[in-house]
Amino acid sequence: MSDLPKAIQINEEGPREGFQFERGAIPTARKIELIDSLSDTGLNQIQVASFVNPKNVPGMADADQVVAGFTRKPGIRYTALWLNEKGLQRALATGRLDVKGSLSLTASEVFLKRNQNRTAAQDIEAERSIAGMYKANNVPVERASIRAAFGCNYQGDVPTAHVVDLIGKLIQAAADEGFTIKLVSLADTMAWATPASVKRLVGAVRETYPDLQIALHLHDTRGMGIANAYAGLEMGVTIFDSSVAGLGGCPFAGHSGAAGNVCTEDLVFMCDEMGIATGVDLAKLIVSARLAEDVVGHPLPGSVMRGGTLAALRDAIKTGAAA
Amino acid sequence: MSDLPKAIQINEEGPREGFQFERGAIPTARKIELIDSLSDTGLNQIQVASFVNPKNVPGMADADQVVAGFTRKPGIRYTALWLNEKGLQRALATGRLDVKGSLSLTASEVFLKRNQNRTAAQDIEAERSIAGMYKANNVPVERASIRAAFGCNYQGDVPTAHVVDLIGKLIQAAADEGFTIKLVSLADTMAWATPASVKRLVGAVRETYPDLQIALHLHDTRGMGIANAYAGLEMGVTIFDSSVAGLGGCPFAGHSGAAGNVCTEDLVFMCDEMGIATGVDLAKLIVSARLAEDVVGHPLPGSVMRGGTLAALRDAIKTGAAA
Repeated sequence: MSDLPKAIQINEEGPREGFQFERGAIPTARKIELIDSLSDTGLNQIQVASFVNPKNVPGMADADQVVAGFTRKPGIRYTALWLNEKGLQRALATGRLDVKGSLSLTASEVFLKRNQNRTAAQDIEAERSIAGMYKANNVPVERASIRAAFGCNYQGDVPTAHVVDLIGKLIQAAADEGFTIKLVSLADTMAWATPASVKRLVGAVRETYPDLQIALHLHDTRGMGIANAYAGLEMGVTIFDSSVAGLGGCPFAGHSGAAGNVCTEDLVFMCDEMGIATGVDLAKLIVSARLAEDVVGHPLPGSVMRGGTLAALRDAIKTGAAA
Repeated sequence: MSDLPKAIQINEEGPREGFQFERGAIPTARKIELIDSLSDTGLNQIQVASFVNPKNVPGMADADQVVAGFTRKPGIRYTALWLNEKGLQRALATGRLDVKGSLSLTASEVFLKRNQNRTAAQDIEAERSIAGMYKANNVPVERASIRAAFGCNYQGDVPTAHVVDLIGKLIQAAADEGFTIKLVSLADTMAWATPASVKRLVGAVRETYPDLQIALHLHDTRGMGIANAYAGLEMGVTIFDSSVAGLGGCPFAGHSGAAGNVCTEDLVFMCDEMGIATGVDLAKLIVSARLAEDVVGHPLPGSVMRGGTLAALRDAIKTGAAA
């Protein structure tokens, strides 16, 4: 137990995940309402939009208006996602976002071919070019990420050594443009991770790159999200992507059962109860989670927003309200 | 990783949990259909009914017919629950159940007073009397259980030392009737456990009673079920109660958000993927989970029945069907 970290950093991805993968159109004003609500919870990093082609992701067509509309709160990093220079320029043009670069490789060659029609060699070349783009735009790059780091629906299990190798390639690609990678995000894009594989991969990455910070991006499609986060905590991982109320879905057609990121308030609950600081006010976050359900108009998978917190029960016991 | 057990025992509680807490009436024939389906999955212990007062638990009024109606499969222990001699006699009278005694204490005195109108001293006296009842009926007793072992909605956190002490009292009560307790079940009745508290309590119980087997009865109300099971596995726990599709609810009025036991197929999935044998065929269990949803007529919380197995994806990749 003493090995658990004292504090973690949560990167809230709910707005992007939720607005991106929900089927129906969500009014811009309601997206802004959710972001503003999240800004009031103590979260200090919130991903608010994707600057991607609206033909591919219609739910993000209003990304510029969303970013223009929310109320910025000091101390919070508002981030966004983009896939190319056009997206980056849109993000920079808002003047309201924390724009930092990230280099990514996909650990599954089959998926890479299928999804982006690239070979592994082309993937790394593309990332070299992305690193150059960041340099040209004076955008700092400290982060690398590996997609499908735990397995792939089209290729199967991903060898640990392959992920370790890809991280080295990204470190080199960044270095060639004068950047130093400080953080690597291991993304369980298709929900193949288990607590055992989280420990195995995090352990291997930590051993090879002892100076890198490690982040986990977990999906809950097979109910392993919180257990995988716990395994990460046991390995000293201190950065987690998560999604309020479990908002989100799978970006890949053909997997309708896929779930969103691990649920933020369930993660905060676990941390609160284990003495790990998150900076987040769980009661306020539950208000946001319920708002998220209202915004998307259907039940979302989060548990604690339904089951309630233990802190509230302890308070009720103290004041006699539980009797 | 090497500390994880090689195999675990799963006690399926879905039929009892599901039939007990569902609001609408479930036809007897459909209950039997679910039990027969579960008998085909490789599960070797299935709790099929509660012999309790139908005035208190209307969903169990047909317990005798359910037990008379399912098809017994060799090698499976079919169990039931009862709270007094009348219930025990009904279970014995069926001639179709694996009838074994168990002694239980509740770790929260406030809950005990509220729920059963007993003091702690009266609770242990009642269990001494129950032990005598088992002796008089030639029913063996090897199991003890502690309710609310991790916390209580009306009392708050439960000290580890108190649970350890109560286990000692049950061991003594059993010994006084000539029984030897071999297994203690730690029940997270109101879903207060976290991975850290599972480790703390299991560690303390193991240290004090090194010869006792430990079972975990976990609820998923706050989304911690699978993470708590993983923490138990890391502590060498090899016996888990669980519920197909996450069937069940909370026996306590006033907590409508309470969830059932940890979901059996999600637990089996995690074990399969981590090399821990369960004896259960996950694909068949998912068939049962979908049947359970059909029987109760509303969505159930299980994840893997929606997200799908990795074994199926690996097979599809091997045969080329994934392309």
